[in-house]
Amino acid sequence: MFFSKLDSLSNAIKLISDNQRVTDIEEISIHDAHRRVLAEDIIAFHDSPPFDKSAMDGFALIAEETFGASNSAPKEFRIVDAIGAGDFSSKTVKDNEAIVIATGAPIPDGANAVLMKEYTTIDGDDLTIYSQVTPGENISPKSEDIEKGQKILDRNTFIRYQELGLIASAGYDTVKVYKKPKVKLIITGNELVEPTKEEIDKAKIINSNQFTIKAMVEDSGAICEICHAGDTFDEVKDAVLEASKDYDVIMTTGGTAISKGDVVLDVVDDLGEILFHGVAIRPGKPAGAGIVNGKMVFTFSGQPVAAMSQFDMFARKYLFEMQGREFDFHIVKRISQLKIPSQLGRTDFIRAVSDDECAKHVLNRGSGIIRSMVEANSYIIIDENDEGYQKDDLVDVVLFDSLLW
Amino acid sequence: MFFSKLDSLSNAIKLISDNQRVTDIEEISIHDAHRRVLAEDIIAFHDSPPFDKSAMDGFALIAEETFGASNSAPKEFRIVDAIGAGDFSSKTVKDNEAIVIATGAPIPDGANAVLMKEYTTIDGDDLTIYSQVTPGENISPKSEDIEKGQKILDRNTFIRYQELGLIASAGYDTVKVYKKPKVKLIITGNELVEPTKEEIDKAKIINSNQFTIKAMVEDSGAICEICHAGDTFDEVKDAVLEASKDYDVIMTTGGTAISKGDVVLDVVDDLGEILFHGVAIRPGKPAGAGIVNGKMVFTFSGQPVAAMSQFDMFARKYLFEMQGREFDFHIVKRISQLKIPSQLGRTDFIRAVSDDECAKHVLNRGSGIIRSMVEANSYIIIDENDEGYQKDDLVDVVLFDSLLW
Repeated sequence: MFFSKLDSLSNAIKLISDNQRVTDIEEISIHDAHRRVLAEDIIAFHDSPPFDKSAMDGFALIAEETFGASNSAPKEFRIVDAIGAGDFSSKTVKDNEAIVIATGAPIPDGANAVLMKEYTTIDGDDLTIYSQVTPGENISPKSEDIEKGQKILDRNTFIRYQELGLIASAGYDTVKVYKKPKVKLIITGNELVEPTKEEIDKAKIINSNQFTIKAMVEDSGAICEICHAGDTFDEVKDAVLEASKDYDVIMTTGGTAISKGDVVLDVVDDLGEILFHGVAIRPGKPAGAGIVNGKMVFTFSGQPVAAMSQFDMFARKYLFEMQGREFDFHIVKRISQLKIPSQLGRTDFIRAVSDDECAKHVLNRGSGIIRSMVEANSYIIIDENDEGYQKDDLVDVVLFDSLLW
Repeated sequence: MFFSKLDSLSNAIKLISDNQRVTDIEEISIHDAHRRVLAEDIIAFHDSPPFDKSAMDGFALIAEETFGASNSAPKEFRIVDAIGAGDFSSKTVKDNEAIVIATGAPIPDGANAVLMKEYTTIDGDDLTIYSQVTPGENISPKSEDIEKGQKILDRNTFIRYQELGLIASAGYDTVKVYKKPKVKLIITGNELVEPTKEEIDKAKIINSNQFTIKAMVEDSGAICEICHAGDTFDEVKDAVLEASKDYDVIMTTGGTAISKGDVVLDVVDDLGEILFHGVAIRPGKPAGAGIVNGKMVFTFSGQPVAAMSQFDMFARKYLFEMQGREFDFHIVKRISQLKIPSQLGRTDFIRAVSDDECAKHVLNRGSGIIRSMVEANSYIIIDENDEGYQKDDLVDVVLFDSLLW
């Protein structure tokens, strides 16, 4: 890895952003649309509720007729009909008449309020009321939630459970969303073996990147498939070329082969274009990205922590925005509980434990120490223009939870 | 719905907590373990790294031999071997000897540092170095991440991507986790129809709860299947009884049938035991819970917003803790941008838009207004002992994102 000149983090991010692509649109069942991103505006097909609806079990009546009713001054009504949920009454409520009504049922003509059961007693068709209601009381008016023809959600809205309910209420049984990006993760490294409880051959190491990076891809709303390639130019080239046909994004880990420089970047250079290689960041300096066959290729380090941090710096935003969902680091301010040295001209992503007030960086920071990521719940980010912080300084923090899809 | 006496929220939560169950344990592939909860301690089968490992491409040599080397005072070494990743050398490095080494390869005997390629030139087997290294430099020492035999993760840890990588590195190809709870969601209501763009029959309403509640169950790490039941006692009874055999948790929405009180609670009372019915909360007062056939039954309102809030108050914690994962509301303090009235003795979950400093409640608060949940990203919680807040008061806020699995 010879980096004649390191790109700044902001420049590297801009190079990726300049090559941002968005996935195609697909129409899927509303049953499958949770946590997808809308690729169309939602225009309501119906009012919701579609009629003035009772919000309580009780009696539909004319509010003005109840005025003055109390425990000491009850009033008498006559029950003329009953409406269950899903039913309606063709009767019109007149003075001193009431219709039994269930929650969710349409208010009958003539009535303008619902008196709750609790405030009544019944004897056959005779209703005695002990409380008054105001006009509109216990009624959910027609279209109070959604008005037919109205735009209720914009394209590019992320569909949480509540948006899902709203889309259904608007009458959509299918919905247009952005396709999930298909990511091919190419793991390089002759030294890597699968997890095993048995003794491991000398010089071999268990491959953890396939697990962490795949899980991070899934945490970004995308689909990940894994393949393995040896450290030779030809093996990596075949894998990248093949992946560039069927996948939207390619990611690699490792790929530094002896005497050959960085095999993966050589392959990207051969098959397409390198956007950058080598960024003034810690951890993860050897980070690279390029374009092969129109597809973005992220080349991550073999070191597990470096690879995870590189993913967060470069790939997350790309995967989110491929699906039409905006992504930017949500920076919060915390008090640093320790002094943190850094270097001018380099951006540091320092694993840290943060609560609602303070942040404390994890001390063991080697880029191979997965436990440092396990102990952490956040990054302290030190800008390239800062030389670090003193204890009790306010620092920029990104919580891991804020990075998730 | 006659609530002779409303339970307090804290009492209702305690009644659920007293009946907390935990799912069985299953052993699954490490490939499927992302976002599951550990049901065993993880004890490392291996050191990681398993040997002193080169952290760079460069030359393994004896650090002391490099002392004093610089651009103006280069030193000469002889290259005696080369180690690619996955390989090892049987040679021992002696004074003024160097072995070419790839990132990830084991440091050969005799060597105690790696000098990066950047600071060298090569001519055949002759190596000229222009920089010095300290003992241990660019070496990831054996077991710096994981020590064989050490407990590296506790039972009940939530497996994020970084924990997944650590578990793999420790040698686990399978892992014991808590089973995902199977939830049966019974939607009651004769008035409900499926989403459709076509005109809807009079008195019918599109069923949105099946979408919102199912998605919330999934957002709690569990599996959800849906069935529909009419508003009669027998239909609901059949559905609850059937579900109690094959599912871990039962949830219902709606079920208030005319002249029959709350059918769902009548069924729970008939088949098992009611824990509570009616809670001093807003929204969601008619919330109930019970036990049928040993399984927890949550009875939610038919009103969409009430149902979602009830889920958050009662069901989320139960589903998390069924899977061995602790759950408590993560309360943050925000400045209220509006005055908020409330009632002593009632706990309010008020939909609000919060940023890092302020919270502003959503004005349209009807419990049928799904849009109020769509506009919101948080609840302002007003304790039963508070009568509300003035503008600029500090209020308790729970961000929706903090509720997710």
